[in-house]
Amino acid sequence: MVALGGNAILKSGEKGTAEKQFENVGRTCRRLVKLVVDGYGLIITHGNGPQVGDILLKNELSRNVLFPMPLDVCGAQSQGMIGYMLQQSMRNELKKVGKEMPVVSLVTQTLVDESDEAFRNPTKPIGSFYDSSEMEVLRKERGWQMVDDSGRGYRRVVSSPEPRDIVERKAIKRLFESGVLVIAAGGGGVPTVVGEDGSLRGVEAVIDKDLVAQMLASYVKADFLLMLTDVKKVFLNYGKPDQVAIDRMNIAEARRYLREGHFAPGSMRPKVKAAIRFVEAGGEKTVICSLEKAVEALEGSAGTTIQKEN
Amino acid sequence: MVALGGNAILKSGEKGTAEKQFENVGRTCRRLVKLVVDGYGLIITHGNGPQVGDILLKNELSRNVLFPMPLDVCGAQSQGMIGYMLQQSMRNELKKVGKEMPVVSLVTQTLVDESDEAFRNPTKPIGSFYDSSEMEVLRKERGWQMVDDSGRGYRRVVSSPEPRDIVERKAIKRLFESGVLVIAAGGGGVPTVVGEDGSLRGVEAVIDKDLVAQMLASYVKADFLLMLTDVKKVFLNYGKPDQVAIDRMNIAEARRYLREGHFAPGSMRPKVKAAIRFVEAGGEKTVICSLEKAVEALEGSAGTTIQKEN
Repeated sequence: MVALGGNAILKSGEKGTAEKQFENVGRTCRRLVKLVVDGYGLIITHGNGPQVGDILLKNELSRNVLFPMPLDVCGAQSQGMIGYMLQQSMRNELKKVGKEMPVVSLVTQTLVDESDEAFRNPTKPIGSFYDSSEMEVLRKERGWQMVDDSGRGYRRVVSSPEPRDIVERKAIKRLFESGVLVIAAGGGGVPTVVGEDGSLRGVEAVIDKDLVAQMLASYVKADFLLMLTDVKKVFLNYGKPDQVAIDRMNIAEARRYLREGHFAPGSMRPKVKAAIRFVEAGGEKTVICSLEKAVEALEGSAGTTIQKEN
Repeated sequence: MVALGGNAILKSGEKGTAEKQFENVGRTCRRLVKLVVDGYGLIITHGNGPQVGDILLKNELSRNVLFPMPLDVCGAQSQGMIGYMLQQSMRNELKKVGKEMPVVSLVTQTLVDESDEAFRNPTKPIGSFYDSSEMEVLRKERGWQMVDDSGRGYRRVVSSPEPRDIVERKAIKRLFESGVLVIAAGGGGVPTVVGEDGSLRGVEAVIDKDLVAQMLASYVKADFLLMLTDVKKVFLNYGKPDQVAIDRMNIAEARRYLREGHFAPGSMRPKVKAAIRFVEAGGEKTVICSLEKAVEALEGSAGTTIQKEN
């Protein structure tokens, strides 16, 4: 199971043209193909931050002419878009090395609990920055919760609840087991709750993609969970003069570091949480590393490896 | 195999809010669930005209701030969006009648031939209307082919090539055969060509969804191809005083009517073409009818049935 960070599709500061995104996705897929050549079956999931941000902003800029779509629908759009880029590029890169296998991406919904405490305290900023008068209008007319984001302006905040289940997990598993390379749960999946009558309904929230990747990885009984990001390893005291790179840690150590507050919320913290959960649920190991070093990290010569015992 | 017309998601003149689209999709799914209750396995495909039109227009209205995505990427976005609405609603409606089965939608690419003569003569208008000065700018800056659309303004035209293959067909078939309700090839699939090095590449074109539905139906060896639209039956001399509804026709009759020019291009013509191809490839029958009468039409008491022999 491979979880791709946002930088696998668009690096921060890059121009978000379709060409640039295809170029990045192509490079990402060339690296992932090495894992297939090495004999691994893959399920790929990915972030969608910059893409869903663009879709949201296009909705806002057009709101006097066209109906804006809610966040769940925008998330599904981003799954279609990124899934398309990934599945086309994976197929192309596989073909270049003489491998032909079916590659598909599935629109995926992730169940969350309406009573999750995250819904009482939305903290995840999404979309554009607004000035205070725009902020007042959006608060009133759209019912958005808005916060001052580090003095750069006001932004909408939504909840980031815990994932509880993946609605399409059976189909994903069936495809994976039949030798299909599956792309699923993009952006953590579309957040969905079960209503009183048992019906599913999308909600405007975001779900951490690494926690969802773990859930899917454990469900399909994947051997490894690879979280590919823009840092080479997990660090203690990250960004401080005494920062220390971690090559390996066991679950007890990872838990202690978490408690000690070494890992940033929304960044390394959910990754380490996902790593612990995956190994506890029976997975062989989790690897957190840079996209460039995926193969080496899986072999143990790069990145940070988390296992039950050292 | 069921091909849903655009009216299954949004009727012309309706406000395109997410709520309205979910309402329509819910009603559509309640009808399709009857087919599942009757014991049929389903693959569903759907149009995407109004949705991709909205996405394109949002791109255009935001083009001074954000990079517009090309038509192939917008099509993939619409697949994610409509796929999400359909798979959530189908699951909900199935649950209401006590059926639980996996429902997924797959991002789908459809191969077209770069040498298709349609590419030399783009005829399919897409997106918004522009005045003549805007038209000149778009022609120069974006390289768009533009035409005067019935005096209502200028619109971009793209090609509508013949579908040649469905890239993800194997995975679709595997899922269908394992009892999954599959939603695929939305909007006819993302048009894709094979480049000189064998790589796939999206192109800015549109593919008739009914012709793609036929291709998929024949490939999975579906018994029936249902094309659900906003008219009750196929008509000869449609819209004229002497119009005649057709209850049944065989292939020879359908071919003759096509030759005689009874069916409108981009509307009933590709449906009848798809019907002929499906039955010729070994399918039992094709039914063209209104969404409301799907069950009755399959039983032969509504719509137009096309079979090899009467």
